[in-house]
Amino acid sequence: MTRHSPAGFFHDRTTTELAQRLRAGETSAVALTRAALSAVEEFDAGLNAFTAVDRDGALQAAEKADAELAGGTDRGPLHGIPVAVKDIIDVAGLPCEMGSAHFAGHVSTSDAECVRRLRAGGAVLVGKTTTHEFAFGPTGDSAHRGPSRNPHDPTRITGGSSGGSGAAVAAGMVPLALGTDTGGSVRIPAALCGVVGFKPAFGAVPTDGVFPLSQSLDHVGVLARSAQDCRAAYRVLAGLDPEPSGETGETATVGWVAPESLHPTDPELTRTARAALEVDGLAVRDIALRDPKDVHRGFLGIQFSEAYANHAERVAEHPERYTDDVLERLREAGRTAGWQHVRALAARDRWRREVHELLSEVDLLAMPTTCVVATELGRREVTVAGTDANVRGALIALTKPWNLAGVPAVSVPAGHLGGLPVGLQLIGRPGREDLLLAVADRIVG
Amino acid sequence: MTRHSPAGFFHDRTTTELAQRLRAGETSAVALTRAALSAVEEFDAGLNAFTAVDRDGALQAAEKADAELAGGTDRGPLHGIPVAVKDIIDVAGLPCEMGSAHFAGHVSTSDAECVRRLRAGGAVLVGKTTTHEFAFGPTGDSAHRGPSRNPHDPTRITGGSSGGSGAAVAAGMVPLALGTDTGGSVRIPAALCGVVGFKPAFGAVPTDGVFPLSQSLDHVGVLARSAQDCRAAYRVLAGLDPEPSGETGETATVGWVAPESLHPTDPELTRTARAALEVDGLAVRDIALRDPKDVHRGFLGIQFSEAYANHAERVAEHPERYTDDVLERLREAGRTAGWQHVRALAARDRWRREVHELLSEVDLLAMPTTCVVATELGRREVTVAGTDANVRGALIALTKPWNLAGVPAVSVPAGHLGGLPVGLQLIGRPGREDLLLAVADRIVG
Repeated sequence: MTRHSPAGFFHDRTTTELAQRLRAGETSAVALTRAALSAVEEFDAGLNAFTAVDRDGALQAAEKADAELAGGTDRGPLHGIPVAVKDIIDVAGLPCEMGSAHFAGHVSTSDAECVRRLRAGGAVLVGKTTTHEFAFGPTGDSAHRGPSRNPHDPTRITGGSSGGSGAAVAAGMVPLALGTDTGGSVRIPAALCGVVGFKPAFGAVPTDGVFPLSQSLDHVGVLARSAQDCRAAYRVLAGLDPEPSGETGETATVGWVAPESLHPTDPELTRTARAALEVDGLAVRDIALRDPKDVHRGFLGIQFSEAYANHAERVAEHPERYTDDVLERLREAGRTAGWQHVRALAARDRWRREVHELLSEVDLLAMPTTCVVATELGRREVTVAGTDANVRGALIALTKPWNLAGVPAVSVPAGHLGGLPVGLQLIGRPGREDLLLAVADRIVG
Repeated sequence: MTRHSPAGFFHDRTTTELAQRLRAGETSAVALTRAALSAVEEFDAGLNAFTAVDRDGALQAAEKADAELAGGTDRGPLHGIPVAVKDIIDVAGLPCEMGSAHFAGHVSTSDAECVRRLRAGGAVLVGKTTTHEFAFGPTGDSAHRGPSRNPHDPTRITGGSSGGSGAAVAAGMVPLALGTDTGGSVRIPAALCGVVGFKPAFGAVPTDGVFPLSQSLDHVGVLARSAQDCRAAYRVLAGLDPEPSGETGETATVGWVAPESLHPTDPELTRTARAALEVDGLAVRDIALRDPKDVHRGFLGIQFSEAYANHAERVAEHPERYTDDVLERLREAGRTAGWQHVRALAARDRWRREVHELLSEVDLLAMPTTCVVATELGRREVTVAGTDANVRGALIALTKPWNLAGVPAVSVPAGHLGGLPVGLQLIGRPGREDLLLAVADRIVG
């Protein structure tokens, strides 16, 4: 982190460390929850990371967690850990506004399945985090309650759409937060805010109770301070045994994908990200994509068609309730033709086969997470490597391929550029998440 | 058949009977092929069932089939049987014009997989049959080489799109013909021409080498004089063992679906079709559909989107090469939105679940094949049960649900109305085709 960033209690503490201290009696769930609530109180006015805080509910859950631990009931690695949840995911009894005036004042009546699993794992839910309106945008600065702000520079975006979760973890307000990722919405704020963001394989974590953006691309993911924390949370969310496979990631073959094959990228950012791969035991070689056009065609046709299917009646009946930004893109989405959707689905099939082949040649793929570092709030155009680009494209170009392929991907902090965080992205095979996150852990470390 | 219909050699002969006579030395493949060629010569000028006849190739194949049988090589139930193939299916060395000026003069360079299987089964390919342009229409009267004509009344349609195959079998020019069925294109001409038409389960017969109309709804099917003939051909086409399961169809529960729940239907036609079910051993009861709206929404959204994806460049570059009829529908298809396609796919999922449930309650479903008997060539509007309807809708409404569900369905002759054939449709479970066709066989008989 840069010098002047807000540094809440959790800014240098992992859930793994906290879990040990909880069991050693050196702290309590109530103490951790109070630490989270104070950090929110201290820093959130400047960051707008939270849309709702459940002080009473959180303290009650923390007391229960402490009592259980004292009584010998141990719910695993998230027991007693404060967690924040993106505001498009249902948490019973808390507001859930999707970042939208359409849902102003809306309160969830039940838990999303992923939230139910967090609770069953003993996590303490402290509140809801800011999302780009309906999760439809990677900047995090269009929402009816205003933009989330980057802890490294509050005049800049967090990235999105899980921007509040990124800021909350980066500022040390919570050690762990849930996000969702349709084209990069967990990994982008992780990269721009300097934390770890993990998107599991498609379908690994249920999306019931999550407001859909594009159902065949939507993933629930996590943001945390370490890859090990992501792994622990992932296993709880996916309903897996808490014990990892034992893959250490001490040796692995990594295929470096030149980001320019997908989108112009800041060359300094590329160098910084690639340098982070210089870790003992990793054999890195260059890998070329066969037909990157399929990525753009496939992603856009599918995301637009599914997104508009989720919004058609709202756009027709209450267009004024959207921000201009999102309304304009929804209208563009609505103009996608059915035959283009058909071709997009075929492009996805081809791309999935290609990714499957690439991942049979190497253990992991790697590239930067984004083409640029955090831009100014509200900015929509940017010059990247001498080329004019829109900010949205420059943020999403390197993450969306892995939503389209449905494979697990993680963004890890890889240094800074002008004081702003740079993210390195690692992509792995479904079923080999432990290897992916073990390598990520060695890089962060 | 009505009195004055053309009655070629095969008009009262099944492939099953012919196979026995071939093995008893009472006929030969060459004799059968010559009979087919003469019938085509005698009757086709009035019916336009054939777009190409391969006299030399057929006689050569017949000679080979005879030599093989004489030498002790028996390729199974289609060995030495003359077969015709719809003109959107590749047969190496023969013209394949798809009923379209776009492909005028086009000659296939390889066999479709289904044709390869027919040849491997010893069938003798005598020629190609007329199709509605690009198989995109159920009337069979829009094609660049003119309409196929109904043997029962040449001023009326055969139904389509496999109209030539329907006319060729009905007029006794061949005992068996291949068709394709995206929304009813095998069963509709079978019903209107008074023969049996079978559409297998989706995916049971490969569509490689078949010009696509709507890939996720396209099926290869067969038209013949008996359900037993369809079963024999189906097993060859699907690569199954020639021996059926032994299901006799002597008892079965049949759910009657009132056609009016899908489309207004001629009540006399409904009565005629239902009466054909009065066969010993069949327990018939009424079954209601839960949400038939899903059928229309699902079918149209998917067929239109996929069809336009297959034609977009041709429509843009050479619209003048289409008939007005098909061009107008393609343009309408192109206006289907991506989000409507997404909702259509969801509607299909719901419909498939409903059909799966219905078919767990009864062995078979039954309803008429079409809502009307064969209409006059070129007619596009019709009054059905006092309601104005378009002919296309009245032909396809009862068959398309089973393409959308992907389940096997067969149309069998169920009597006549004003001298024109009525079809009864039976629908079964994938994997239980033998039961379906055994019951169909008892009804035809």
